[in-house]
Amino acid sequence: MAGDPIQRLVQQLARLPGIGEKTATRLAFHLVRCPEQQVRELAAALIEVVDKVGLCSQCCNVTDRDPCALCGDARREPTALCVVATPADVVAIERAGHFRGRYHVLHGLLSPLEGIGPDDLRVAELVGRLGPGGVEEVILATSAHVEGEATAMYLARLLKPLGVRVSRIASGIPVGGELEYTDQATIARALDGRIPM
Amino acid sequence: MAGDPIQRLVQQLARLPGIGEKTATRLAFHLVRCPEQQVRELAAALIEVVDKVGLCSQCCNVTDRDPCALCGDARREPTALCVVATPADVVAIERAGHFRGRYHVLHGLLSPLEGIGPDDLRVAELVGRLGPGGVEEVILATSAHVEGEATAMYLARLLKPLGVRVSRIASGIPVGGELEYTDQATIARALDGRIPM
Repeated sequence: MAGDPIQRLVQQLARLPGIGEKTATRLAFHLVRCPEQQVRELAAALIEVVDKVGLCSQCCNVTDRDPCALCGDARREPTALCVVATPADVVAIERAGHFRGRYHVLHGLLSPLEGIGPDDLRVAELVGRLGPGGVEEVILATSAHVEGEATAMYLARLLKPLGVRVSRIASGIPVGGELEYTDQATIARALDGRIPM
Repeated sequence: MAGDPIQRLVQQLARLPGIGEKTATRLAFHLVRCPEQQVRELAAALIEVVDKVGLCSQCCNVTDRDPCALCGDARREPTALCVVATPADVVAIERAGHFRGRYHVLHGLLSPLEGIGPDDLRVAELVGRLGPGGVEEVILATSAHVEGEATAMYLARLLKPLGVRVSRIASGIPVGGELEYTDQATIARALDGRIPM
């Protein structure tokens, strides 16, 4: 069999999401053969993430400085706050290049089945950011599935009494998508959310 | 956007085979959120592989000791030598638990299109292991595709004059596979390789 260090690497790689033992073995044997420098760079990048990355004290996004680059950017509008489930969602919205306000990362979604309630999310931090003279609109940008909708509903009820406008991102036919191949729930939602032209 | 350390981790992860930028991003955000200890263990496993793993001076398999556990195991028959392309192939054959001889890892297969010739493989080391009183049979256990067959043909011609028996692993219908869904080339091979009952 392969030596112990390789087995240990396979075990560690197999703990990553979506990577089973076969993929982990393939990756480990690749890493054994590839230039030493590349493996060291990967290990260094892992250690750097552990050592330097924490949560922004304002938006709760992952960052290596506090406040994060987005919260520290004076050109971002402080009046619009986009609430998302994960840091990856921030990346996705930023990639679109359309939103110029600020973010708040919940780090999850409500899920009674998994025992995830409001206290497990960064909801208190979100409420703490609302106050006179600051945020005017909270845009709930959670996904359009059960947990995302439930979280948006919960937050809308929680935030509206605080005197802030609360909106929900639209859901409907994806741009470039074929109506023919769109599922029934999405079509129903697109019809409900139709906009006058 | 996410901080620089995360971007660097994404870049490093995206260099792995079969991992694109989207998967790398997903993995990086997972690693940011998961327990610090787990990330450190993965980094340590990577460094350990770089520091400790080399090639066995006998079979050329990857190992953290020399000779490797298989070559150093006196219970393995020294008369049968199973030639494979990669360390992963050794793991696959050992998992079957059927072969009790020794291995030789070529670290690749002949591929004129990619400019890989015999000098790029551990062929000289293989020839060096053959001699009076030692290996009696060389089993060519390369895959049944073009490069695997070509490498087996080349090695058979090279080794037979050295007074050693050379055999090729059988190819045919996989155990548990449906004849109905087996490709034509495999069926043809299975018929050619039929065995008297």
